[in-house]
Amino acid sequence: MKRIAVDAMGGEHAPQAIVDAVIKTRKELPNVTFILFGDEQKVKGAFPKDDDFKQVEFVNTTEVIADSDEPVKAIRRKKDSSMVVAANYVKDKKADALVSLGNTGALLSSGIFIIGRIKGVDRPALMPTMPSQKGEQGFNIIDVGANAQSKASYLVQWAQMANYYAEKIRNIKNPKVALLNNGAEDDKGDPMHQEAYKLLSETDLNFTGNIEGNELMEGKADVVVTDGFTGNAVLKAIEGTATVILHMLKDSLLNSGVIPKIGAGLAKPALRNLAKRFDTKRYGGAVLLGVNGIVVKPHGRSDATTIYYAFKQVDKMLDQNLVAKYTELFKDNKK
Amino acid sequence: MKRIAVDAMGGEHAPQAIVDAVIKTRKELPNVTFILFGDEQKVKGAFPKDDDFKQVEFVNTTEVIADSDEPVKAIRRKKDSSMVVAANYVKDKKADALVSLGNTGALLSSGIFIIGRIKGVDRPALMPTMPSQKGEQGFNIIDVGANAQSKASYLVQWAQMANYYAEKIRNIKNPKVALLNNGAEDDKGDPMHQEAYKLLSETDLNFTGNIEGNELMEGKADVVVTDGFTGNAVLKAIEGTATVILHMLKDSLLNSGVIPKIGAGLAKPALRNLAKRFDTKRYGGAVLLGVNGIVVKPHGRSDATTIYYAFKQVDKMLDQNLVAKYTELFKDNKK
Repeated sequence: MKRIAVDAMGGEHAPQAIVDAVIKTRKELPNVTFILFGDEQKVKGAFPKDDDFKQVEFVNTTEVIADSDEPVKAIRRKKDSSMVVAANYVKDKKADALVSLGNTGALLSSGIFIIGRIKGVDRPALMPTMPSQKGEQGFNIIDVGANAQSKASYLVQWAQMANYYAEKIRNIKNPKVALLNNGAEDDKGDPMHQEAYKLLSETDLNFTGNIEGNELMEGKADVVVTDGFTGNAVLKAIEGTATVILHMLKDSLLNSGVIPKIGAGLAKPALRNLAKRFDTKRYGGAVLLGVNGIVVKPHGRSDATTIYYAFKQVDKMLDQNLVAKYTELFKDNKK
Repeated sequence: MKRIAVDAMGGEHAPQAIVDAVIKTRKELPNVTFILFGDEQKVKGAFPKDDDFKQVEFVNTTEVIADSDEPVKAIRRKKDSSMVVAANYVKDKKADALVSLGNTGALLSSGIFIIGRIKGVDRPALMPTMPSQKGEQGFNIIDVGANAQSKASYLVQWAQMANYYAEKIRNIKNPKVALLNNGAEDDKGDPMHQEAYKLLSETDLNFTGNIEGNELMEGKADVVVTDGFTGNAVLKAIEGTATVILHMLKDSLLNSGVIPKIGAGLAKPALRNLAKRFDTKRYGGAVLLGVNGIVVKPHGRSDATTIYYAFKQVDKMLDQNLVAKYTELFKDNKK
């Protein structure tokens, strides 16, 4: 039996979206038990009245970490929060994985300080799957903000972990791995990125060289490795640009008079089609790689469908023994 | 008389688009002489047969720096290239400004190594004007790639130069200046960004704190200061995302059958309206701030209209004595 610890209080639509996702998923994953952490009365109340709570356990917690809480302080002080108690279940091997839609910084801290990093992994890192022009496959980008400061050797480890994820979880054969840099040539970037280029070239990864910011969405690489500061800025810039353009498009279509409005109505299937291609629901959540358990962070605004995909993603990560693989991969690293 | 040195061989549509822009601009700017550097026969041939070459001079050059050339090597070896000869005109005070659509790296090198940096400026930096959701005003972002490595003190100088540009050239009163960082709180980022935050707080700029990647296009700040590595990645990510979305939108509208196609036809005014709001032509080109002359880089794909705006931008920068102002601003900096 696989056991997923679920922070039932995190995210905009908690606990309802989370409970809905559990109900949707349990039929498909009969070998999974969902342990729901949070205000037990509220969480139970989100189930239909006649639910038999099949594959579900409850752990009552009295605190919630807010998005505005300072991450490290929050996990120290809110010992009885749904997120911290859930993380302790993973640490104590009472659960195999942690899913939370709550405060990202606090979840990273819970992963790193409570669950703990895998021996030999220098720094755990956060990795989402992003959509690309190429279609459904998208790409992974690591690190997008678990580390404000990075070293070349960290980037190599992240590339290795992400490569395995892309192969085993996303079923991409021989993933193309690229380094986010400020130009195409080998010697581009600051000394850290130059060193990362060199080290990546020496691995047995399918390293295809540098990739620039404008090439990300084209889907030129399956795995993009970047320092956590740049990765964070770039991820947010992509999300912000997409949001602004789609918002302005809608605005433009609805406020340019009657004819464009009719046009927009007729064009709806095409616009839906476009939205679908940018739909990241099926990607589930971002994963924190390098800690002693599976940690997945769906976006705080996720609906039940996205969370359902996140549960399936966790299930696959457990089946593929990702943590064991990473432990093996870095066992000879003395740090 | 103001004298603008124009690299007539740079960009995708050279020399025609450049000559067309000169013809369009000279009527409006009777006090400007355009010195066109390049293959004189070709450049002259791009003018109408009966043109009187009013306000135009020609300097014949025999080499061209290609986009694929390695920048520093190119400016060392191609001594008789249109870009290098034009830069030397500015260095020798035979021209006041340099406009080139050519190889960006080579233009940065020409600015820094041939024209030379202003005494007291630690590092010149590249700054485009970007569109935002707020409307026509857009925002400036500095540095977007002149420097692969940055220090906090550089960022403060860039903020000061960009602030003056936003005030005098873009007519923004008391521009909001923000630091691109990986979170809103004062203590976010690596030590360099933390120090930059502190130093920026101590200036008399209207420093509004950190800005995150997703907030850029919202127009939350008039001037965004960032290290050149992150700025480069973010700028390209924004451009790439916008390109991919608009491309997919078009694709989606045209390939979803007859009805959406009709809808797209009817919605055209709205789509044009959207495109117009993202039209950066009127912003002219990116500027290299901190060198002993005005250096402007319109995008390599620019048409005559964009180059026309770039000439008007240069004219305004000369009227506002930007170089003198920056010289004054940093005269006590001992570096």
